[in-house]
Amino acid sequence: MKTKNDSLDSYRFFDPDEAVKKIAYELYLNVKDLPIISPHGHVEARMLAADEPFPDPTELIIIPDHYVYRMLYSQGISMESLGIPSVDGTPVEKDHRKIWQIFGDNFYLFAGTPTGIWLTHEFSEVFGIKEKLNSKNALEVYDRIVEKLKLPSFRPLALFEKFGIEVLTTTDGPGDTLEYHKQLKKPGLKGRVIPCFRPDPVVNITSKEWKKKIDEMSNASGIDVASYASYIRALENRREYFKSLGAVSTDQGVESPYAHRLRAMEAEAIFTRALNEKATEEDARRFTANMLMEMARMSAEDGLVMQIHAGAMRNHNTKVFDRFGLDKGADNPLQTEYTRNMHELLNEFGNDPRFTVVVFTLDESTYSRELAPLAGHYPAMKLGAPWWFHDSIQGMTRFRHRATETAGIYNTVGFTDDTRAFMSIPARHDLARRMDSNFLADQVSRRMIDMDDARTLGRALAYELARKTYKL
Amino acid sequence: MKTKNDSLDSYRFFDPDEAVKKIAYELYLNVKDLPIISPHGHVEARMLAADEPFPDPTELIIIPDHYVYRMLYSQGISMESLGIPSVDGTPVEKDHRKIWQIFGDNFYLFAGTPTGIWLTHEFSEVFGIKEKLNSKNALEVYDRIVEKLKLPSFRPLALFEKFGIEVLTTTDGPGDTLEYHKQLKKPGLKGRVIPCFRPDPVVNITSKEWKKKIDEMSNASGIDVASYASYIRALENRREYFKSLGAVSTDQGVESPYAHRLRAMEAEAIFTRALNEKATEEDARRFTANMLMEMARMSAEDGLVMQIHAGAMRNHNTKVFDRFGLDKGADNPLQTEYTRNMHELLNEFGNDPRFTVVVFTLDESTYSRELAPLAGHYPAMKLGAPWWFHDSIQGMTRFRHRATETAGIYNTVGFTDDTRAFMSIPARHDLARRMDSNFLADQVSRRMIDMDDARTLGRALAYELARKTYKL
Amino acid sequence: MKTKNDSLDSYRFFDPDEAVKKIAYELYLNVKDLPIISPHGHVEARMLAADEPFPDPTELIIIPDHYVYRMLYSQGISMESLGIPSVDGTPVEKDHRKIWQIFGDNFYLFAGTPTGIWLTHEFSEVFGIKEKLNSKNALEVYDRIVEKLKLPSFRPLALFEKFGIEVLTTTDGPGDTLEYHKQLKKPGLKGRVIPCFRPDPVVNITSKEWKKKIDEMSNASGIDVASYASYIRALENRREYFKSLGAVSTDQGVESPYAHRLRAMEAEAIFTRALNEKATEEDARRFTANMLMEMARMSAEDGLVMQIHAGAMRNHNTKVFDRFGLDKGADNPLQTEYTRNMHELLNEFGNDPRFTVVVFTLDESTYSRELAPLAGHYPAMKLGAPWWFHDSIQGMTRFRHRATETAGIYNTVGFTDDTRAFMSIPARHDLARRMDSNFLADQVSRRMIDMDDARTLGRALAYELARKTYKL
Repeated sequence: MKTKNDSLDSYRFFDPDEAVKKIAYELYLNVKDLPIISPHGHVEARMLAADEPFPDPTELIIIPDHYVYRMLYSQGISMESLGIPSVDGTPVEKDHRKIWQIFGDNFYLFAGTPTGIWLTHEFSEVFGIKEKLNSKNALEVYDRIVEKLKLPSFRPLALFEKFGIEVLTTTDGPGDTLEYHKQLKKPGLKGRVIPCFRPDPVVNITSKEWKKKIDEMSNASGIDVASYASYIRALENRREYFKSLGAVSTDQGVESPYAHRLRAMEAEAIFTRALNEKATEEDARRFTANMLMEMARMSAEDGLVMQIHAGAMRNHNTKVFDRFGLDKGADNPLQTEYTRNMHELLNEFGNDPRFTVVVFTLDESTYSRELAPLAGHYPAMKLGAPWWFHDSIQGMTRFRHRATETAGIYNTVGFTDDTRAFMSIPARHDLARRMDSNFLADQVSRRMIDMDDARTLGRALAYELARKTYKL
Repeated sequence: MKTKNDSLDSYRFFDPDEAVKKIAYELYLNVKDLPIISPHGHVEARMLAADEPFPDPTELIIIPDHYVYRMLYSQGISMESLGIPSVDGTPVEKDHRKIWQIFGDNFYLFAGTPTGIWLTHEFSEVFGIKEKLNSKNALEVYDRIVEKLKLPSFRPLALFEKFGIEVLTTTDGPGDTLEYHKQLKKPGLKGRVIPCFRPDPVVNITSKEWKKKIDEMSNASGIDVASYASYIRALENRREYFKSLGAVSTDQGVESPYAHRLRAMEAEAIFTRALNEKATEEDARRFTANMLMEMARMSAEDGLVMQIHAGAMRNHNTKVFDRFGLDKGADNPLQTEYTRNMHELLNEFGNDPRFTVVVFTLDESTYSRELAPLAGHYPAMKLGAPWWFHDSIQGMTRFRHRATETAGIYNTVGFTDDTRAFMSIPARHDLARRMDSNFLADQVSRRMIDMDDARTLGRALAYELARKTYKL
Repeated sequence: MKTKNDSLDSYRFFDPDEAVKKIAYELYLNVKDLPIISPHGHVEARMLAADEPFPDPTELIIIPDHYVYRMLYSQGISMESLGIPSVDGTPVEKDHRKIWQIFGDNFYLFAGTPTGIWLTHEFSEVFGIKEKLNSKNALEVYDRIVEKLKLPSFRPLALFEKFGIEVLTTTDGPGDTLEYHKQLKKPGLKGRVIPCFRPDPVVNITSKEWKKKIDEMSNASGIDVASYASYIRALENRREYFKSLGAVSTDQGVESPYAHRLRAMEAEAIFTRALNEKATEEDARRFTANMLMEMARMSAEDGLVMQIHAGAMRNHNTKVFDRFGLDKGADNPLQTEYTRNMHELLNEFGNDPRFTVVVFTLDESTYSRELAPLAGHYPAMKLGAPWWFHDSIQGMTRFRHRATETAGIYNTVGFTDDTRAFMSIPARHDLARRMDSNFLADQVSRRMIDMDDARTLGRALAYELARKTYKL
C-alpha cells in the first residue's frame, strides 16, 4: 500500500530491527518457492473444473469475499450497493464498474488489515498493478484487470499451476456427488484438488434445510436414512466415497467443541424427533456432541483426519441473514472452552495412534491456556493455524508466541488459508511464510535456536507439517 | 522519572528501534498540537464554572484520584492517612503536607505505571518540576506547586485554554440541573464543556439511592414518575434537556452488556416492585437489560451517541465502601461477554444509520474475539478506547494490535481520557498520541502502510474520529 | 541449542535491538550472582538429606520431569518406552541408555521451548556439555554425564551450594513427619531447606486417598480427627509443627479459587458425609471453598503466607492416570475466575495487615483483567510468578507486560521455579533474571524508568521481593 508501489518491498512485514530482518529474509528465501499445500478451504471445485475466464474484477474480488464487504458495510455502505446477491428478491446493484468505484473510494479503510495486505499483493503480483487503489484510479485499474482476465494465462487452472499449488482442498457436503472433483482427475493437471467431508448440514438437526440434506445424503449413498442407525451407515458410506476421490480429512463447524457420546437409545430418540421436526435446541446440542464422538470414531477407523472449527455464532445479524443468506460476514466469535468440552473425546481417542484431530479456534485466550497444553500432551491432537480474523500479521505472531513454547512447532500443522478467494491464495501463503520466518528469525536472534534449526522448522511450517499431518 | 529530569525526552515511550523511533516522532509531531477532544470523562463542571484556585497539591493530585491511592493502599498505607474523606465519620488525616510526604516516600511504587508517567508529565510540563519525587524533595515540591497554584494562570479556566481543550465532556445524572454547564456558556471561553447523560442512578433499581434519584428526575423533568411509562417519558425529557445544553452522548455503566427488551407488562411490573422496594437482583438484571434496549431506541430517535462501559464489579471491597463510599479504587473487572449479550440490541439497532453505540471493555480478551469482529460488521457499533486499567503504554499497544486488523482504524473512536484528574488531561492525551504514533510507525517500518497513510490515520486517531463519531 | 555451542551466548534471550540488549545485559550482571530463593517447588527433602549420587542421566533428567516426557508423548512416543514407572504393573523400559537414545533422537522437538532452554543450560553449565543433543551424540553425552555424577562435587548438597541456593522450599502433606527436613538442619549447610504446608490431600474429600490421609494427619498431630472441629484443630497443629521446622507458607491447589465460609453445621455435615464416603462433588466444591476461608483465617493468625495455585484440571487423560498415576503431564488448564470467586476471602482478610495471599494462575487472560487490579488494591494480595506452562520467555514477558502497569512491581513476588527438576533450578532462575532484566531494559530504553530505578527493581525481582513476601 505504498503510494507509488513500484514493487513490493522484499523485506516487508518483518521486524523493524535490521538484524532480525536480515535473518527473516534469509529464512523466507528458504521457503518462498515451496509448493502450496492448502489442506482446508472453500474454493469451489466447479470453478476449477469449468476453467472458464473469471467474469470481471467485482465478481472476482468483491462479491464472493465477505472479508471485503463486511468492512465496507461496517462503514455504512449497503450490501445492496455492493451487488451482494439477495435471497429475498431485493434488487441489488448490477453495474460492476459502479461497485468497483465504491471499492476504490473506500480502499483506504483496509489500511493495516490483512485484507488490505492480501489485495495489495494480489494486485501487484497477479495483475501487475503497482499503484494503491483509490477513487481516481479505480476504473482504470478495473479495466486493466478486465484485460488480464481475458488472457488464457488468467484462467483458473493456469493460475492454479502458476500459483504452485500442490494440493487444494475444497469443502463439500454429505450429499455432494463430487462430479467436479472427478472431472479434475485429468492427467495434465499438476497438483491435486481433493474434497473434504463436512457433515454439518446433516448434523444440525434444527436447521430448516436438515431434512432436505438428509434426503440428498440418502440419494447419494443409496442408503435410505430412516433411523439413527441408517444415518450412521450413510455417513460412513459417504466418507468412503470421499476417500475414494482423494479426501484425507473431514471438518465440523460447531458453536462449542463439547463432545459426548449418547447412549444409542437417546441418539435414536433425538433423531426420530428431528425427523418429526420436534427436536429442541437442547436436542441439537446433545446430538452435535454425540456426532463429534461418532466422527472421531469413524476417523480412528477410516483414517480421515478430523478437523474441528469451533466458536462461531453464525448469522448474528438477522437482517443481513434474511436478505442475503449464509456466510455474509455476520458470523461472530464466541468464548470457547476446550479442556472440559473435549475431555471425553480426547480420553477415548486422544491416545489412539490411528487418530488425528486438528483443532481451530476463534478465541485466542485458549491458545496458551487450553489448546497448546492439550496438543502438547495428547498424541492425536494438533493445533490448526490461526483462523479467520486471526490470520493476520499480529494474529499469526500471537499464535506462535502463545502456542509454541508449550506445544512446540511439531504439534502444529503449518498454514491453512481457509479461503473462498482463489486469487488470494498466494498472498495468504506468502504472508504466512513471512510471518513464520520472522518468528523464527527473532528466536535465532535471541539465540533460542540456531540457523540450522530455523531452516528446518521453517520448511516444516511452510510445507512438511501439512503434508505429514494430512497424510498427503 | 529520570533522576535528573532536566526535560522530558522527546522520543520517550517509542520503540527502542531507531528507525521506528524516528518515524514515530515524525508522526507524533504531526498530531502533538492538535486540540484536545475529551468525549467522555469525570471532571466536574462546577470546578470549571467556579474557576477558583486549586486548594493545594494533596487536594489536587492525591485525594480525588483513586489511581493514585489504590496503589498506595495496596502497599499497606491506610486511606485514612492519605486524607481520603470517610462517609462513616472515621477521622482522617487533615495535614496535607504530611500526606504529601507519604506520597513522596512511596512515589517509587509508580515506576513503570501509567499513573507514574502521567504524574511525571504533569510535574514537568504543568508545574515545571523536573526532579523525580522522593522522600527528600517531597515538601519542597509541595511548596513549589503551592506557589504555582496561586497564580492566575493556574486557575481552572486558564489551564483549560492552555491545555488546548476544544471539547470537554462531563458525566451527569438524570436529576442534574446542569446549572454549571449553563454558567460555562460564556462568550470568552474557547472550547466547550458539555454534559453527558448517565441514567445509571435511576436504572439501578436495587440501589438504596434509587427512589431519591427518581424523585430528583421527577423534579428536574416536571414529570411525576409514578409508572414505567412516565419513567420513560421523564428520561426522554431529560435527554432533550441535556441535548439543549450541548450533550451529544449518553453513557451506561453496566456489569454485563446483556440487552433484552421486556414486554411492557413485565417492565411495568418490575418498576412497580422497585417503587415498593420489592425488586430482586434478577429484576434488576432484567430491567437493566431492558433499559439498554430503551436507551438504544431513544438514541436512534434523538441522535445522542450511546456509550456502554461494561464489566466492572463495583465496590468489591466492602470495608472500603462502608468507610469511604463509591469510586474509591475498589472496583474490579469481570469477564465480559458481548457477542451473545449484545445480539438483540445489535439486531434491532445495529443496522440503523441514525444510531451509534460506542462500546468499552475491561476484558482485553474480547478485543480480537468479540468487539473487533462486531465493530467490523455492524455499521452502528464503534470500539471505545482502551479503558481504565488498560489506558497505558502496553494496554494501548495491545488494543491497537488486537483490534485494528479486524475492525480497522475507522471503526474505533480515537482517545478517551475518562479522567477525574483535570491536571492529567494533557499528559493522557500526549501519551495516547505517542502510542498511536508508535503503532503506526511500526506499520510504516514493516511496509504495511506508507507515510501518507500513517499521517492521515494519526490525525484520525488524535482528533478526527472523536469529532466525527460524537458529531462535534 | 547452537550446533556448536562452545559457550552459551552472554546476551542470549535479550531483545534483538542492540541498545536494549546492552542495557539488559548490564542489568542482568547486577542480579546474576544473587543467591537463589526458591519459595515454592517440588524437590524432595529426602533426596537432599540422603545426599547420595544421582543414579544416571535418564533417572535424573527424563523420568521425573513431566515437562520432558509430555512433549515426547505428544509425538507418539509411549511413556512405557521412556521408563515412566507404571502403577498398574505394566512393564516399562528398564534400559536407561535406550531411553536416553530416544531422548536424543527427539531432542529437536524442544526447539524454542523453555524445557529446551533449561536443558541446554543444564548440559552446558552444570555438565560442561556444549554440543546440541542429537541421535549421534546421545550415548556419548550419556556417558559423560554418568562420569560427572560419580564425582563428589555432583552430589545433591554440593550442587545445592554450588547453585547458590539460600532457601529451597519443598511441598509437604499434612501427615508428613518432615524427618528429612530435620536431618537437613545440620550446621555445615549454607542455605536452608524448608517445608511448605499443602493440605490438599485432606481437603479433597472425594479423593480415594482422603481417609488414609486423614488417618496420617491424626497420627502426625496426635489429634484424633473424628469431626470437623478436631479436623480444624489437627490442621492448626500441623501448621504449627511445620512452622517450628522453618515453614513460612502454605499452598493449595484448587480447580477454582472460589472461597466461601460454610456455617459450622454445614461444614460438620459435609465432613461427616465424607467420613461415611457419601460426600458428593458439590459437597467437595463447597468444602474446598470453605477450607480456603479457613486456611486464610489460620494464616492471618499464625502468619504463614497463603499460596493459591488455581485452575488446573488434574488427570485429564484417564488412560495415563490409570497406568501411571498422578502428575504425569496430563493436567490441563481451565478458564479461571478470581474477581467474584475471591470476593469473600478478600473482603474478610484482604485488608488484614497480618495476612498475605500469593495467587498463581494458568489463565493469562486474568493477569490484566482480574489479578493485577485486585493485587493493585488489596494490601494482602500479591501476584505469583508466571506458572508452569507460562514460565517461559514469552510467558514471562506477557506477565510483566500485562500485570505491571496496574499492579506495579511491588505487588508481585519475584520468581518461583516450582520445579521437581533439581538440576534445572539455576537454569530457571537464570532465565527469569534475564527476562526481567530485558523487561526493565525495554522500559529504560523507552524512558519509562531510569537506570537507577531499573537496578533497584531488578534486585527486587531477583531476590528481595521473595525474601520480603515470604518473610525469609
